[in-house]
Amino acid sequence: MTQKTLPKHLQQDARERLLNAALELFTQRGYSAASVREICAAAGVTKPVLYYYFGSKEGLYLNMMDGAYSLFESRITQWISLPGSVRQRLIYFCEGMFDTSIERLPIVRLMYSIYFGPPQGAPAFDLDKFFDRMLKIICSLVEEGIRQGELRQGNSNDMSWTVLSCLNTSIEEQLCHVEPRINRSTLTMMLNIIFDGMTAR
Amino acid sequence: MTQKTLPKHLQQDARERLLNAALELFTQRGYSAASVREICAAAGVTKPVLYYYFGSKEGLYLNMMDGAYSLFESRITQWISLPGSVRQRLIYFCEGMFDTSIERLPIVRLMYSIYFGPPQGAPAFDLDKFFDRMLKIICSLVEEGIRQGELRQGNSNDMSWTVLSCLNTSIEEQLCHVEPRINRSTLTMMLNIIFDGMTAR
Repeated sequence: MTQKTLPKHLQQDARERLLNAALELFTQRGYSAASVREICAAAGVTKPVLYYYFGSKEGLYLNMMDGAYSLFESRITQWISLPGSVRQRLIYFCEGMFDTSIERLPIVRLMYSIYFGPPQGAPAFDLDKFFDRMLKIICSLVEEGIRQGELRQGNSNDMSWTVLSCLNTSIEEQLCHVEPRINRSTLTMMLNIIFDGMTAR
Repeated sequence: MTQKTLPKHLQQDARERLLNAALELFTQRGYSAASVREICAAAGVTKPVLYYYFGSKEGLYLNMMDGAYSLFESRITQWISLPGSVRQRLIYFCEGMFDTSIERLPIVRLMYSIYFGPPQGAPAFDLDKFFDRMLKIICSLVEEGIRQGELRQGNSNDMSWTVLSCLNTSIEEQLCHVEPRINRSTLTMMLNIIFDGMTAR
């Protein structure tokens, strides 16, 4: 029986199981060490099922990363359309990014492993674009705040990096080997300190 | 001729060459993939020379990490004994950490690779202690600032994490795959924004 004849819900199930199994194995053992055989065994499917959905291990990996970026982009679209002051919207954006990272912690962990770890032979995927996109959003909100007088005059680049630094470190702390010492409310408090600094005269 | 009979400057030279070669290979290929044979070849020494100085590949790695921690600790001792306001001392500490990280970027890169990368079989070394130590120093300075009225009343933990976040992200940006967008003066500007927020009433 080929995959094409499987009922749709079973097809999706196998696809999801493959993505989840690969995510776990890539993180635990590294991309190159995780074999197609192991991924299929962990997902409870045969090799042709993996090839049917993704073409190859590379295809599976790229599909996983594209999926993460799509989710990120769709959430962003939702967050940045919200009304409110620049301060409220920046806090909302950072909290949303923080919550989404915790919700998707295994893939965030894999991204860090690929980005900072030794070369693992994973196909090229521009991981910098997540960070670049966050920086751009924060920067455009900060500039709006300066223009409208909500924030004091100053270098929007320095201000944006201060905000992004707190968001970045808060997410990273969730990946640490110790119990995370930053939670959502710590992040909000950090952002409030920065906003006090950016509105001070 | 055994190592013991080599003149002292040649001994040190071989030891340094081994540490440098291992650092480069561990980062490029991962700890487990870098063999004693390759490390010795890159350092231009024979295997017994490595065993003489470090006992094993594990010993070499631990020696490298201990060396990094000792340097870190000796610089800290120097930085925290300086006079000045809490603001000046915190900026001095962060700038010093930033400069030292750039000076020793290859080993910082290796630490990130071991910490965030897939398990590479490196012997246990508590990498969290670098971050813990930085947090503790920042926290004690912030508490001093609150006690003496230089900083406003507030949660010293939130304030400390805000400072550490900027230092952390500034160092990390130097490890990125793109041209670093934060330099020493961006870090100082970020810290000034935070200090304005921590002195605001």
